[in-house]
Amino acid sequence: MSQEMLALLKERGVDVRDIARIVLRLQKPFSPELTLEECLEAVHSVLRKREVQYALLTGLALDKLAEQGLLPEPLQTIVAGDEPLYGIDENLAMAIASIYGTVGITSFGYLDKKKMGIIGRLDKNKLNRVNTFLDDLVAGIAAAASARIAHHYCKTP
Amino acid sequence: MSQEMLALLKERGVDVRDIARIVLRLQKPFSPELTLEECLEAVHSVLRKREVQYALLTGLALDKLAEQGLLPEPLQTIVAGDEPLYGIDENLAMAIASIYGTVGITSFGYLDKKKMGIIGRLDKNKLNRVNTFLDDLVAGIAAAASARIAHHYCKTP
Amino acid sequence: MSQEMLALLKERGVDVRDIARIVLRLQKPFSPELTLEECLEAVHSVLRKREVQYALLTGLALDKLAEQGLLPEPLQTIVAGDEPLYGIDENLAMAIASIYGTVGITSFGYLDKKKMGIIGRLDKNKLNRVNTFLDDLVAGIAAAASARIAHHYCKTP
Amino acid sequence: MSQEMLALLKERGVDVRDIARIVLRLQKPFSPELTLEECLEAVHSVLRKREVQYALLTGLALDKLAEQGLLPEPLQTIVAGDEPLYGIDENLAMAIASIYGTVGITSFGYLDKKKMGIIGRLDKNKLNRVNTFLDDLVAGIAAAASARIAHHYCKTP
Ligand SMILES: [Ca+2]
Ligand SMILES: [Ca+2]
Ligand SMILES: [Ca+2]
Ligand SMILES: [Ca+2]
Repeated sequence: MSQEMLALLKERGVDVRDIARIVLRLQKPFSPELTLEECLEAVHSVLRKREVQYALLTGLALDKLAEQGLLPEPLQTIVAGDEPLYGIDENLAMAIASIYGTVGITSFGYLDKKKMGIIGRLDKNKLNRVNTFLDDLVAGIAAAASARIAHHYCKTP
Repeated sequence: MSQEMLALLKERGVDVRDIARIVLRLQKPFSPELTLEECLEAVHSVLRKREVQYALLTGLALDKLAEQGLLPEPLQTIVAGDEPLYGIDENLAMAIASIYGTVGITSFGYLDKKKMGIIGRLDKNKLNRVNTFLDDLVAGIAAAASARIAHHYCKTP
Repeated sequence: MSQEMLALLKERGVDVRDIARIVLRLQKPFSPELTLEECLEAVHSVLRKREVQYALLTGLALDKLAEQGLLPEPLQTIVAGDEPLYGIDENLAMAIASIYGTVGITSFGYLDKKKMGIIGRLDKNKLNRVNTFLDDLVAGIAAAASARIAHHYCKTP
Repeated sequence: MSQEMLALLKERGVDVRDIARIVLRLQKPFSPELTLEECLEAVHSVLRKREVQYALLTGLALDKLAEQGLLPEPLQTIVAGDEPLYGIDENLAMAIASIYGTVGITSFGYLDKKKMGIIGRLDKNKLNRVNTFLDDLVAGIAAAASARIAHHYCKTP
């Protein structure tokens, strides 16, 4: 199932290395010795979680159906137009980000505003594609992987 | 838009009075003088909220698309089969339930297990229909309306 | 730190076996072969999580300080009187319950209303003690342990 | 009670105008005609909500008790030292931020990282004071007020 997730992301134009790069930029200030390989491993761990897989499958299906004009109205217009107050895309992404606690949620909020790396490119690429869910899901995965790393590097008192 | 929500629920076999009846059963022990009309008014208030409308539109679209076999696999099998650990249905419903704070979320958890009134009937009616999202969304609306009433009847210290 | 958690709960009148018994009652209908030992192991796993430990330390400190009359007003009156709309107790407990996803949150909502086993006894024992946080924290731990077991017993499609 | 909140914040060194200024910086890019007075009005609306008042009372009591060395160990060391993975401070703040939906939560995550205006000053001022909860609570109020304004300015489709 984890392999299917990589294929699904690839099909929508996202390489897991792009996600790992965001994780590295987020966590480097706190753990200077962190490598891209470790970030990639954290992304894979996140993608092995069932809740993450279900959220990805659902969000990406909605993006694809909107692209094909198959959603019932008014949902079709809302998703295809990436209506700013829709919020279900952020909601699904937060279900991913919150797996590793509050650190994941705050990192997601930051990525959602800064639109770092691939997230910004997805958010802008709306010509022939619907990426309403994809940009948030990628941010959610990056935030969860960051939180995983933060928890590993810090020691309990 | 609020009228469209009533029509959408009706089309899926749910009358808002069924939801109001659940609210009455939940809140009667705490407010013995509560009437069905007041519960109905609370349900209408919940249905006027934009977040609620977006969650309803999205969940009911997924139920309908699964019924028509239009979702991509493996999501089609998961939603059509109401896979117990899917969780995105509860997730959307909790976005509704949490609008009036923690009281809404705990009431949702209770309804999700007890499957009171129309919720139980929807959960069982899976012969010709997919109600994977509908039962949870109805529980979420009932929980939010209950929390709204709880907040109104209690006084701040 | 996990041993300190057991001591802390014990000091407030809660044995981890009481929590394991709730988990068993919640999960038995779904996994008939489940034993009390397995439930106890799940409770221990939950208590090893840092977020759980921090929530427990905070909530139990607030209960104790209220018992000693050391909280500033109006918080002292609110916590000592277990004011029904306070909600911060449920909030902390949900941070625990949500560690294993939505199943944990809905189980918490159910326990919060049903007040099963030790939870009901704590909720009633308010003569010489403040258990405003304790009953919810115990429900949160039981809900998290239940969700952990549910995830283990179910297979992904 | 709303007046008590202003007094409580003032006592901890926070003027509501400082919070309104953060709201203005967050929302100005989306609503160029927005004024500081409107942001101040949104902050007051947030402070009138009971959940917000309860979260503020609880968090600020914990900061004060830690300052006086009155919390039981190991909580005293954790709160007084602003231990980075504690997370209960962010948890309380998110209960505030989420009142107006996902927009509030993502804005909170952004403020939590950027430490804009008064939030940054509080986060640094740890010489004679414990502001472990205060900085997050202020960010939570600013995020909730921003979300309130975002919802008012946008129109439903
Ligand atoms: Ca989006
Ligand atoms: Ca369902
Ligand atoms: Ca309680
Ligand atoms: Ca803090």
